[in-house]
Amino acid sequence: MANQAEKGVPGRSYAILGTGAVGGYYGSLLAKAGRQVRFLVRSDLAHIRAHGLKVDSPKGDFHLEKVDAYASPEEMPACDVAILAWKSTENAHLAGVLPQVLKAGGTVLVLQNGLDPEREAAAVVPDSPILSGLCFLCSRKAGPGWIRHLDYGAITLARYSPAGPMGISAGMRDIGGDLEAAGIEIRYQEDWRTARWRKLVWNVPYNGLCALLGADTAGLMADPGLRALVAEIMDEVIAGAGACGFPMPADFRDRMLEDTDAMAPYEPSMKLDRDARRPMELGAIYGRPLEEIAKAGGRAPAMRALHAELAYIDRSVRRDRR
Amino acid sequence: MANQAEKGVPGRSYAILGTGAVGGYYGSLLAKAGRQVRFLVRSDLAHIRAHGLKVDSPKGDFHLEKVDAYASPEEMPACDVAILAWKSTENAHLAGVLPQVLKAGGTVLVLQNGLDPEREAAAVVPDSPILSGLCFLCSRKAGPGWIRHLDYGAITLARYSPAGPMGISAGMRDIGGDLEAAGIEIRYQEDWRTARWRKLVWNVPYNGLCALLGADTAGLMADPGLRALVAEIMDEVIAGAGACGFPMPADFRDRMLEDTDAMAPYEPSMKLDRDARRPMELGAIYGRPLEEIAKAGGRAPAMRALHAELAYIDRSVRRDRR
Repeated sequence: MANQAEKGVPGRSYAILGTGAVGGYYGSLLAKAGRQVRFLVRSDLAHIRAHGLKVDSPKGDFHLEKVDAYASPEEMPACDVAILAWKSTENAHLAGVLPQVLKAGGTVLVLQNGLDPEREAAAVVPDSPILSGLCFLCSRKAGPGWIRHLDYGAITLARYSPAGPMGISAGMRDIGGDLEAAGIEIRYQEDWRTARWRKLVWNVPYNGLCALLGADTAGLMADPGLRALVAEIMDEVIAGAGACGFPMPADFRDRMLEDTDAMAPYEPSMKLDRDARRPMELGAIYGRPLEEIAKAGGRAPAMRALHAELAYIDRSVRRDRR
Repeated sequence: MANQAEKGVPGRSYAILGTGAVGGYYGSLLAKAGRQVRFLVRSDLAHIRAHGLKVDSPKGDFHLEKVDAYASPEEMPACDVAILAWKSTENAHLAGVLPQVLKAGGTVLVLQNGLDPEREAAAVVPDSPILSGLCFLCSRKAGPGWIRHLDYGAITLARYSPAGPMGISAGMRDIGGDLEAAGIEIRYQEDWRTARWRKLVWNVPYNGLCALLGADTAGLMADPGLRALVAEIMDEVIAGAGACGFPMPADFRDRMLEDTDAMAPYEPSMKLDRDARRPMELGAIYGRPLEEIAKAGGRAPAMRALHAELAYIDRSVRRDRR
């Protein structure tokens, strides 16, 4: 396959780690915009090599006929930016992948859910800049090499450091610029922790309850008892974030509920994972935030109950997969 | 079929309403002990008429070859005692059944779960004495006309009245005596409400969580997060009962947990109902107790969350059955 760099495509090269609903979508947009994008692909390799990547989207369907797809990190040339877009449940593979696919001094952009999945990337490439990326995206895999984008798509970018806020760097704006040029709305945030806690206010109730009950967001919102439970869990996450030093605006909970009312009915990834009997992202979305809340002296009983219920289901799925 | 009364069997006659895990078990014990027992049967009629009722039990298997089984209340001669043993979800049928199968002045013994299922019987036969019966029984239907008794079997009897405690009457002791003569352990309680609230301390966490998670009691107890959640829900029920005027001993929660640890792994009826996509007994076990707790100014957030989750599942089951 012809290498795009040889054809004179300028600028940063991107490695997409996980060519699914998130990585497949954003990676395809970058490639369509002319970036050099290399996809690490697990299950769909033969299909993608033969047929490329197809994206259905309300913003316009498109089809990338030629895609740089790789079965293993060893085959992939090192890139300037690695976009980590597989599920956080797979992060044990990072040690074998990141050093292979990332140039010295390259940046990792972590597009994973939950609190502090970045630390797992940072542990593997401690000298590389790490960016937190929070995706506000409704999308799903529709088939081999085929992504269905449903709605939204903005990314909130923040520079990651275990030590705290890092401000907005020039390198962050460069990558943000590539994403914006690909048609992706980018918001910049000074403190990655604020960004992560805010996103948890949505993920904690909706991902877990949809997975537990086999529901979509509209099903929860139409049920008064569950709507009240969603609000109660949001209040717990907001109070927990406040206890950890990340207070939110007074109307944040109500805005989240209203935004969800305005959304098309959506099945979060955790619900799809449970349906498909795949592991769920419980550590990043429940376990770590609950640890932080407990350390800060907070309580979150409804969130804790939901975590216990999901963990029971997840363990039986993992047991069956052995 | 020869009527047992004609053969000179003395004493009270019993109508069993609902020949399943509960009614089939207790009714068979009464019949085996020589009582005149008439079974109202829904799905297994032909099988039971042809083959009788079979009970497997650690206390000894037995087989009633001849069983007085009826397809409709109109065919059944009126009895001295009607044992209400179908699920409380079916109580809309009471108006068409109780007046047919109960002699004037006859007694209704309500062997249903939850808070105040008796009021539905009392509304239909307001002049009949009503007894509350709380079954501490592990049993299930194993097939047509076939009950598998797993463990326990005691019944706590109390005289029912919406007004409050009624003490222990002679009529109650007569029926209790018949049950004891059939090998059933009977405990008498002065106040039916105390008995019902105590049983809820077990039913609220185990029935709902087992149904929600597809678990048995041992699965919950072996999982530290779920065990903590069971204890938290028990505390809420105990506090709610206290707010309603029915305080419990200080060690009641821990005794319940220990008793459950000592039990063989058990799937409560609500779990079997969910698996079989039958309606669940949510009103009696969750809805009414939560109403009473709210009226008394109490809170039970974990119980309320569990109720909201189960109600969502139950509604989708009922929608599919239409």
